[in-house]
Amino acid sequence: MQRYFVPAENWNDNEIVITGDDAHHIIRVMRSKTGETIICSHPNGQAATSTITSITNNVVHAVVKEWLEGSAESPVEVTIAQGLPKNDKMETVLQKGTELGAASFIPVRSERTVVVWDDKKMDKKMRRFNKIVKEASEQSQRNKMPSIQPISDLKKLAEVNAGYHLKLFAYEEEAKKETQQLFSSYIKNVRPGERVLIVIGPEGGFSEKEADLLKQNAFYPVRLGPRILRTETAALYALASISYQFEESAYY
Amino acid sequence: MQRYFVPAENWNDNEIVITGDDAHHIIRVMRSKTGETIICSHPNGQAATSTITSITNNVVHAVVKEWLEGSAESPVEVTIAQGLPKNDKMETVLQKGTELGAASFIPVRSERTVVVWDDKKMDKKMRRFNKIVKEASEQSQRNKMPSIQPISDLKKLAEVNAGYHLKLFAYEEEAKKETQQLFSSYIKNVRPGERVLIVIGPEGGFSEKEADLLKQNAFYPVRLGPRILRTETAALYALASISYQFEESAYY
Repeated sequence: MQRYFVPAENWNDNEIVITGDDAHHIIRVMRSKTGETIICSHPNGQAATSTITSITNNVVHAVVKEWLEGSAESPVEVTIAQGLPKNDKMETVLQKGTELGAASFIPVRSERTVVVWDDKKMDKKMRRFNKIVKEASEQSQRNKMPSIQPISDLKKLAEVNAGYHLKLFAYEEEAKKETQQLFSSYIKNVRPGERVLIVIGPEGGFSEKEADLLKQNAFYPVRLGPRILRTETAALYALASISYQFEESAYY
Repeated sequence: MQRYFVPAENWNDNEIVITGDDAHHIIRVMRSKTGETIICSHPNGQAATSTITSITNNVVHAVVKEWLEGSAESPVEVTIAQGLPKNDKMETVLQKGTELGAASFIPVRSERTVVVWDDKKMDKKMRRFNKIVKEASEQSQRNKMPSIQPISDLKKLAEVNAGYHLKLFAYEEEAKKETQQLFSSYIKNVRPGERVLIVIGPEGGFSEKEADLLKQNAFYPVRLGPRILRTETAALYALASISYQFEESAYY
């Protein structure tokens, strides 16, 4: 069943008004009719099967049929701080990261960032990014849409204490070491409801100076397996592992 | 240090001859000179730092300096049988799957396969696929290059007993069930050295009939987390989880 994320102001108790792209999708793409059922998600994370009550010029009205209980949300709130990658790799991270359960994304500028996003470009990019995250949330049946936070500098990210219970950064030098702290040794100590921040560098990774800055601010360096991952693969490894640990294992 | 996969016939004890694209890469892209060090990987999985002894017209000669001990190969041999996906998604699975440690890939045709690959297209595709896997192996510092097996029908794949210790298939219906066997409950029973086959459907997943066929042939249905993953994300989830379990956990 198709799921739509409907802004809070479009809910009036059990009555829902759907406009814009989603209405277009319901009317023109799905060719749904009055009486058919869709799933509507409220930004608070609740979702309900809903019956379409009327379809007029690009506006769909629906009414809640049944609130859904099950949740496809990770018990751990993971934020991916992704070093700005080249080409369309940020879109890969956002799309697949949403499928894999990320709660939030922060695009990060660091020493080895190559791409330049000026403010004008940024507005357009952010609109596109939000669209990707919304579509991936609908497709993967998420209850909550991940947020995309404003672009940050690594230094600011490192120094602002935003209440994370665990802060990690992927560090290629860790993958090359003979012995290292295992990724799972950090993850297994996280408790449901806690917030984890994982920082991933751009293509060239982090400089030694940046690694030192992060360590000084209580970020732990981790490797994500013994192989050298591309920047856009690292976030997916981290998110899949956390899902495996908290959603596909019996004890944690 | 740059790594190159050199065919067995190009090794003569400790002397290595590098030709073709790799020689081009060494000479024109890396602009390496005699005396510089590269890593050469033998198809048997061994790798050595090697000194370039001569560079002539598109041929590079090198001699083994030191055999490397560490291995970036997964202790578990995972084969991904991937339902033929649309567009360039197979390339995503091959590239990222190689980074994440897959031992082998099998492209699979099934009931809901939409794309058509005729034999002529297939040859060209396979050449391109092998190139992607080779480059991803070099980039991720693998010791062994994953193999790409010939395209198979699901029925054949299900019925041929190829000596796998564990056979799983990703089944969307599992993700929708209230209770299900956890993915980790299968993975945790695998021992190092064992072979695992994971079958992933195309965009539309598997039909009930196909799921029955697989079950009859000792394939277990699994969900990969509670969210509905795109076909190309499913393989990456499985491989990252297996790496997390066997390469980033203390006990298994």
